[in-house]
Amino acid sequence: MKKFMDKDFILTTKTAQKLYHSFAENMPVLDYHCHINPEEIAHDRQFENITQVWLGGDHYKWRFMRSCGVDEKYITGDASDHDKFIAWAKCLQKAIGNPLYHWSHLELQRYFGFDKPLTEETAEEAWKVCNKALSKKDMSVRSIIKRSNVTLICTTDDPVDALNFHEEIKNDSTFDVQVLPAWRPDKSMNLEKPTYLDYLAKLEGTVGFKISTFEDLMKALRLRLDYFENHGCSVSDHGLDDVMCTPSSKEEIEAIFSKRLSGAAVSEEEVLKFKTAFMVEMGREYAKRNWVMQLHYGCKRDNNTKRFEKLGPDTGFDCIRNDTNASNLANFLDALEKEGSLPKTIIYSLNPGDNEAIGTIIGCFQDSTAVAKIQHGSAWWFNDNKIGMENQIKSLANLGNLSGFVGMLTDSRSFLSYTRHEYFRRILCNVIGEWVENGEYPYDEKVLSEIVKGISYNNAVKYFGFKLDTK
Amino acid sequence: MKKFMDKDFILTTKTAQKLYHSFAENMPVLDYHCHINPEEIAHDRQFENITQVWLGGDHYKWRFMRSCGVDEKYITGDASDHDKFIAWAKCLQKAIGNPLYHWSHLELQRYFGFDKPLTEETAEEAWKVCNKALSKKDMSVRSIIKRSNVTLICTTDDPVDALNFHEEIKNDSTFDVQVLPAWRPDKSMNLEKPTYLDYLAKLEGTVGFKISTFEDLMKALRLRLDYFENHGCSVSDHGLDDVMCTPSSKEEIEAIFSKRLSGAAVSEEEVLKFKTAFMVEMGREYAKRNWVMQLHYGCKRDNNTKRFEKLGPDTGFDCIRNDTNASNLANFLDALEKEGSLPKTIIYSLNPGDNEAIGTIIGCFQDSTAVAKIQHGSAWWFNDNKIGMENQIKSLANLGNLSGFVGMLTDSRSFLSYTRHEYFRRILCNVIGEWVENGEYPYDEKVLSEIVKGISYNNAVKYFGFKLDTK
Amino acid sequence: MKKFMDKDFILTTKTAQKLYHSFAENMPVLDYHCHINPEEIAHDRQFENITQVWLGGDHYKWRFMRSCGVDEKYITGDASDHDKFIAWAKCLQKAIGNPLYHWSHLELQRYFGFDKPLTEETAEEAWKVCNKALSKKDMSVRSIIKRSNVTLICTTDDPVDALNFHEEIKNDSTFDVQVLPAWRPDKSMNLEKPTYLDYLAKLEGTVGFKISTFEDLMKALRLRLDYFENHGCSVSDHGLDDVMCTPSSKEEIEAIFSKRLSGAAVSEEEVLKFKTAFMVEMGREYAKRNWVMQLHYGCKRDNNTKRFEKLGPDTGFDCIRNDTNASNLANFLDALEKEGSLPKTIIYSLNPGDNEAIGTIIGCFQDSTAVAKIQHGSAWWFNDNKIGMENQIKSLANLGNLSGFVGMLTDSRSFLSYTRHEYFRRILCNVIGEWVENGEYPYDEKVLSEIVKGISYNNAVKYFGFKLDTK
Repeated sequence: MKKFMDKDFILTTKTAQKLYHSFAENMPVLDYHCHINPEEIAHDRQFENITQVWLGGDHYKWRFMRSCGVDEKYITGDASDHDKFIAWAKCLQKAIGNPLYHWSHLELQRYFGFDKPLTEETAEEAWKVCNKALSKKDMSVRSIIKRSNVTLICTTDDPVDALNFHEEIKNDSTFDVQVLPAWRPDKSMNLEKPTYLDYLAKLEGTVGFKISTFEDLMKALRLRLDYFENHGCSVSDHGLDDVMCTPSSKEEIEAIFSKRLSGAAVSEEEVLKFKTAFMVEMGREYAKRNWVMQLHYGCKRDNNTKRFEKLGPDTGFDCIRNDTNASNLANFLDALEKEGSLPKTIIYSLNPGDNEAIGTIIGCFQDSTAVAKIQHGSAWWFNDNKIGMENQIKSLANLGNLSGFVGMLTDSRSFLSYTRHEYFRRILCNVIGEWVENGEYPYDEKVLSEIVKGISYNNAVKYFGFKLDTK
Repeated sequence: MKKFMDKDFILTTKTAQKLYHSFAENMPVLDYHCHINPEEIAHDRQFENITQVWLGGDHYKWRFMRSCGVDEKYITGDASDHDKFIAWAKCLQKAIGNPLYHWSHLELQRYFGFDKPLTEETAEEAWKVCNKALSKKDMSVRSIIKRSNVTLICTTDDPVDALNFHEEIKNDSTFDVQVLPAWRPDKSMNLEKPTYLDYLAKLEGTVGFKISTFEDLMKALRLRLDYFENHGCSVSDHGLDDVMCTPSSKEEIEAIFSKRLSGAAVSEEEVLKFKTAFMVEMGREYAKRNWVMQLHYGCKRDNNTKRFEKLGPDTGFDCIRNDTNASNLANFLDALEKEGSLPKTIIYSLNPGDNEAIGTIIGCFQDSTAVAKIQHGSAWWFNDNKIGMENQIKSLANLGNLSGFVGMLTDSRSFLSYTRHEYFRRILCNVIGEWVENGEYPYDEKVLSEIVKGISYNNAVKYFGFKLDTK
Repeated sequence: MKKFMDKDFILTTKTAQKLYHSFAENMPVLDYHCHINPEEIAHDRQFENITQVWLGGDHYKWRFMRSCGVDEKYITGDASDHDKFIAWAKCLQKAIGNPLYHWSHLELQRYFGFDKPLTEETAEEAWKVCNKALSKKDMSVRSIIKRSNVTLICTTDDPVDALNFHEEIKNDSTFDVQVLPAWRPDKSMNLEKPTYLDYLAKLEGTVGFKISTFEDLMKALRLRLDYFENHGCSVSDHGLDDVMCTPSSKEEIEAIFSKRLSGAAVSEEEVLKFKTAFMVEMGREYAKRNWVMQLHYGCKRDNNTKRFEKLGPDTGFDCIRNDTNASNLANFLDALEKEGSLPKTIIYSLNPGDNEAIGTIIGCFQDSTAVAKIQHGSAWWFNDNKIGMENQIKSLANLGNLSGFVGMLTDSRSFLSYTRHEYFRRILCNVIGEWVENGEYPYDEKVLSEIVKGISYNNAVKYFGFKLDTK
């Protein structure tokens, strides 16, 4: 029996252990997609206790607690932080086979030096150990980032965001990690939302002119793209129900936009047309600027109306769609490629059943402007577990060029999630180790180390074009 | 090489063996969903030969024989029972990798003490051994149930069923296994069927009043729900093509029902609206009564018209749908949850590609009224094999709370199928054993034994609220 | 660590090794579906260098090179054959986890005796070794076929093809491998194509009469079916977006066809009706002639318009569809079965998520006219890798009769691809070996050898009814 989560956690072969410890473990972390709050970096937030870090906004944990029958009081309610932590510990010990079990224990081990399994019995001790650690300066947000060997972070930002915290961080010479904005214009696109006109008003305020046409909207967004670019941004991100491709004419788009401005209802068909036009325009801009376009799709959000009304979005009530249409994705990419405007693109579906379709679609749009120009993104959200990551890695390897993969991102709201890069690297090295030990790939240390270091870090440095050295 | 199907069958690690033999093997069986005939329990049927038990109604075996090119004469035709058994034995020895191979040999070993592989060569011997055993009193239906350590069985019953055999069994003090009805009102819902009006006539006969409106139908069903409840029922079951959610108004539903009563054709859209309304009403009733709602969907039935006309339904001509829409499932659950009427629910799709969508949907509707209130049901029908069960277990573990899982059911028409609980438990212990031996979960016997005993039996006792002790 | 791709490549257990080396390795190859050019067999083509064989038309390799960021000049462009090979070698060494890695090295080992991994460093040596070998008579097309132990090849041919090369080969007594045509009438069916009328003109030229009605079209095709049959054909093949089943009347079909002849546009609905009628007519013909019908579906082709305009079809720009509808497949088979016209059928979907639906559909249409009359085809195209083949084998075993499987085909444009049969057999033996070593199936050498030899070769001989001896 292997020891519980020791230094060779996940690494079941000698080759896997060698690859991980020699080539992956010490590579820096480039976190090109996450949801952390830049203000907390700018002001170097210090946490009062482990509940704040762990249960403050982590809907993965909330979901699990609800599945254990825990009262909402101990989840998002008014129980004390201590009691919430104890409730969580009781749940966690039952989370066998769940990634939360690994994520939580990796964080306990790496950041708090707490090596025991967290159980009802050890919960009080863990509470003390963690809180004591958190009170120290070396567990401030910036310290966590530095000791996690992070060189660059991309946050997720709306076009109207002022990016002042990014500026603050950049101008602070005592902190050398790059914290860059990423462009996420979903609110500019989702014209079916009741709040769309309010959003447009905000955007008008930001750019200083009235948005009366789709062309105005694009003009406004182009100004903001320039602004983001001046703040070092080169990555965009889109959250889509599904990738759509319902082309129409300029006139139609203007008519739909104008209809929406008037307050009239727009049909589903019109929404698809509008969003298609929006996405094509965005793609053109990214291609022109040599940005990376990230497409996240396949999620159905806020499924529990009662809870949504109480708790709002991103509180643990989202699910996987199983009706995504890969043909639209292929047609959308082709629409851009046809006119020479297809940017570097990373594709993520929440439905793991889409892996193979994505694996074959990316192969239709590769060219010599970048290695693995169109990427199959790392296993996302609900798939961000051992099986999900293995499946994405193997699917990509079978259907595309694994060696060119830009690898992991945290996608997280928490500053302790950098261990997910470790988790991913262990899984990656284990998969490769298995191939090698099985005689399916030769033990060629030069090539293998390049592949492992590439996927851990170097590929992302080159792909995104960040000002960073490869290692 | 491990020995063929010995005591450590499926159990590849020491931990798996320990968990199975110490904590799973001797737990009682709670078979909360099956299709056995209560009359055969009431009258304690004795079988004449193994063909009656094995090939009398088992369409899994029929399908396999047809795939081997066997003449229908030896399947559902007029060949002698002996010749049918020999024909089956010849097929079975080729069933490598098929669950029938394991199920059949588990049954041979556990009920008949026949430990050899069944082949053309051993078939005559097996025929004699089995038939001799079946002639003994300890192989009557009740004896099989008792020696299988079953404490409770839920059959599958139509609202018009009189439940007299359930009463008979209950009133017989010589038999202490609870045999309860389960409520399956499909025929009351499927208004698109040509036989719908005949069915309504039967229901009218049962309740003693005319059903002229949807409201009447609900009144009738409520009476029958009361009747079932008085017979100890607390479980419902629905067989759906797909879970639907097409809301409409009361008036529309009455109009659709009235149209159908008049004999006029109803459109697909109207069928969806009607069924949605029906299911919402049922959900409300279950919530009120604290019953469990089971949803089985994703099956396309009776695909071979020629055979259907000759042999009728449930004869081996059904298949998996791949066009189920998870969004509707989420919306349906939300429709009930919104009004506080979502009962405990178990969701099964015949399409294994739905596992991950289901795993994330159940997480959207959990609360503190029950542990794992919304369940991802055990691998169903065509998925009821080693790979299918492993996938369901791992998907549930990754996305939800495996430790709260209510576990296995036979879903069977045969009294020898209780070994499927054994098969499931071996697979479960093997999966957990692998995690532990891999260092992915600590060897904590207290927690592990609780999890294993829970999934084997105790969780179901608590979840369904049956009058049974946990072990 | 196992040695890299040695004699026990893929074979991880003793049983797997025994099964492969004793029963699979030396079985002949029956390649019942491929895309090789019969002219090259007739004229016994000799290749000038390895680039001609490997990179001349292999879009799998082209895709991978594009994914590595290689300039199109070295892929389909005007770089020298030498430089193309070096560019390919550099890519291949990064193809970890990709089937191209295994296919290429199997070919290097078996045909060229080159046992080293192909890398940038060994590329020049490999270039020389391979080219020297190719200059010898024992590496002509016919010699390759003979040393690959091939007994029969089915090419892929259009109804208008004259089959003169097949005749030439047949009449040449110095070459004893059967090279038979296979019937692929896609162009006769795809009336939505702009080139459809040109194609009809060709067909008219071939049969010598005007095609003015759908009935005429069928008459013409029947003549060509006869012609193919006289040339030994007994296998058909269809490339479909999805299997369709939209029945309509004879009159409607004639009206649609007549509309198309007039040059008017036909609707999507009309296309589906026409194709359904076409496929039903074909099915009837195959049943009458006892041919095998192959259905390949789930592919979306030519997704990159820019490249398509430059390079044409089959150049590496196709992808998997994820919107195939299994219900239509079941209904189409039923439409034929209802009237007693369902031929032996092999079903392949490009979407691996369809495996389980297919596995259950084939079970609905089996009968005693053939063992495993309806087959789940071997993992196709993008799925033709270790994981894809394992999944297809295990799915078929779980849901149907693996022992009756007709096994592998190359589906290839290259004469070196016969090693894919070896790859498949190793994977098959490894899966079976695992079951046996796990105690899930007994080590019964008689049954196991029959199963392995059957799937490797004998089943196909019997199923297709070719004039060949089983081994």
